[in-house]
Amino acid sequence: MKTKLLRILRETKEYVSGQQLCECFGVSRTAVWKMIGQLKEEGYEIEAVKNRGYRIVNTPDVMSSQEILSRLHSEWMGHKCIHLTSIDSTNNYARKIAEEGALAGTLVVADEQTAGKGRRGRSWETPDHVNIMMTLLLRPRIHPGPAPRMTLLMAMAAAQSIRAETGLEAFIKWPNDVVLNGKKVCGILTEMSAEVDYINYVVVGIGINVNQESFPGELARTAGSLYLALGKKISRAALAVRIVERFEKLYETFVKTEDLRELYEEYNGMCINCGRQVQVREPGNVYTGTTDGINEKGELIVRREDGETVCIYAGEVSVRGLYGYV
Amino acid sequence: MKTKLLRILRETKEYVSGQQLCECFGVSRTAVWKMIGQLKEEGYEIEAVKNRGYRIVNTPDVMSSQEILSRLHSEWMGHKCIHLTSIDSTNNYARKIAEEGALAGTLVVADEQTAGKGRRGRSWETPDHVNIMMTLLLRPRIHPGPAPRMTLLMAMAAAQSIRAETGLEAFIKWPNDVVLNGKKVCGILTEMSAEVDYINYVVVGIGINVNQESFPGELARTAGSLYLALGKKISRAALAVRIVERFEKLYETFVKTEDLRELYEEYNGMCINCGRQVQVREPGNVYTGTTDGINEKGELIVRREDGETVCIYAGEVSVRGLYGYV
Repeated sequence: MKTKLLRILRETKEYVSGQQLCECFGVSRTAVWKMIGQLKEEGYEIEAVKNRGYRIVNTPDVMSSQEILSRLHSEWMGHKCIHLTSIDSTNNYARKIAEEGALAGTLVVADEQTAGKGRRGRSWETPDHVNIMMTLLLRPRIHPGPAPRMTLLMAMAAAQSIRAETGLEAFIKWPNDVVLNGKKVCGILTEMSAEVDYINYVVVGIGINVNQESFPGELARTAGSLYLALGKKISRAALAVRIVERFEKLYETFVKTEDLRELYEEYNGMCINCGRQVQVREPGNVYTGTTDGINEKGELIVRREDGETVCIYAGEVSVRGLYGYV
Repeated sequence: MKTKLLRILRETKEYVSGQQLCECFGVSRTAVWKMIGQLKEEGYEIEAVKNRGYRIVNTPDVMSSQEILSRLHSEWMGHKCIHLTSIDSTNNYARKIAEEGALAGTLVVADEQTAGKGRRGRSWETPDHVNIMMTLLLRPRIHPGPAPRMTLLMAMAAAQSIRAETGLEAFIKWPNDVVLNGKKVCGILTEMSAEVDYINYVVVGIGINVNQESFPGELARTAGSLYLALGKKISRAALAVRIVERFEKLYETFVKTEDLRELYEEYNGMCINCGRQVQVREPGNVYTGTTDGINEKGELIVRREDGETVCIYAGEVSVRGLYGYV
């Protein structure tokens, strides 16, 4: 009910009268007044003007499920939203509930991660309450092989949403970093549980440095935040919701063909690797080349300096001018 | 120590003297006598002849870790063996300990499964203490894409081990049923947890109807056991150990090339689909054809009746003459 109230207040340009709200919820004026009071306690600034009604003036930067759901306009993704004040990692939590049968599209958000994960079991630490930590649980009826490519979709959704929310030119560093002003502001971790020809579930987790004001030590050279790039703080919930909505569209397109044939040009348009010198590090092999981006499988096509063209499925690729590679 | 004692007793053709055992373990005669007593309590028949020593006469059909480890001659696989009297499913258990960091090669065996799993979340029920239920935990450093093919390796290991233990001609029905006298005696469930380019772990679970004496109702038409085919009971531990040893070899070969190029001919030699009419059922599409077996990717190559050759990655394929398909 509070979610619906928030949605009405947010989506009405002018004041909403207490009478309207009473009718809408089928409750008394006192009950409406009580709900408004609860929202105020949670940090929402709500103006009440006699004979006109209520108007939302300011929204706290919270990731509560009511805040997210009251903003969300997706078809199905994120309609079940679980907000955790503290968790080891949102991916771990999503995997746990996936094992227990949670629905596809479930969104897990957290204020605090005690054991945030990066790729390959690396740890990822982030301060509480200022950044986005969230995971989408999906159960695509596609082959397991291409499913990990959903990580590229999330990078696209994040870059596009950051552009829309901040007006800043966010880029993707292949495969799935999001880069602002040459600094990494976003990491994505996709994990899959699958049988031979059947996906149990995929969890796509994303961490975004949103309102973080500074980074300790060495990290400051390579890591940035939206706040540091924009000079002001933004609503994490608004960005998170936009990402879910955008990801849903990309996902629907992807699962139709099980590849990126309808998406890779869009990806390449935001890919910071394109046209730049890249350095590819494989076990026992390092070489440089240039790239125009990915193919429909999501592989990075690299023209090596020796003239050969190779498709890189995964691995460590540095981009000249980024993260200290000069 | 009991594992070592069992191994010594088993691997010595003649009697092992109490003196030898004392020296071997550095304990007193009384201590040896106590251990022998414990084994007897567990169902081992051990003959003690004065002035000659001890000899193992009969081994109970148990799947205890001491029974398995005392038989095992693998390089590394199964060296850590966890025996559970009752568990929901050995795959679930293996996945749980994998999340907690259990070593590659860990073998999980159970006497009883309360929620045995088949493919795609189907349930699989089996009576307690007569069949094999076991799962191997692996962490191959290969790409996630080909990893589910390990299910074919397990089918090979099972068919070969059944042949070796029983002398019966076990066949593989692609991809991973094992068939004896036209009846299914074995199911395999491979599950993987992976990131984009990194495998967290793979669990390969196998259930084999070993000493089951009958099957209820409809199941009796399609399901069989080694006992029903052979007419006598065999040691589950002996078969389980042989499978682990054989699987280890196949696994080592597989991970070198990340495909079946060195194994597919061996597989095809045991594949019951080969040379037979098969019916392929895909969503919205059913057709018949013949096959000579799999390619190096593990795909079944089917020559359709219309002359076209297709490679089937996964799916439902019936073999004429099997499981009621006539």
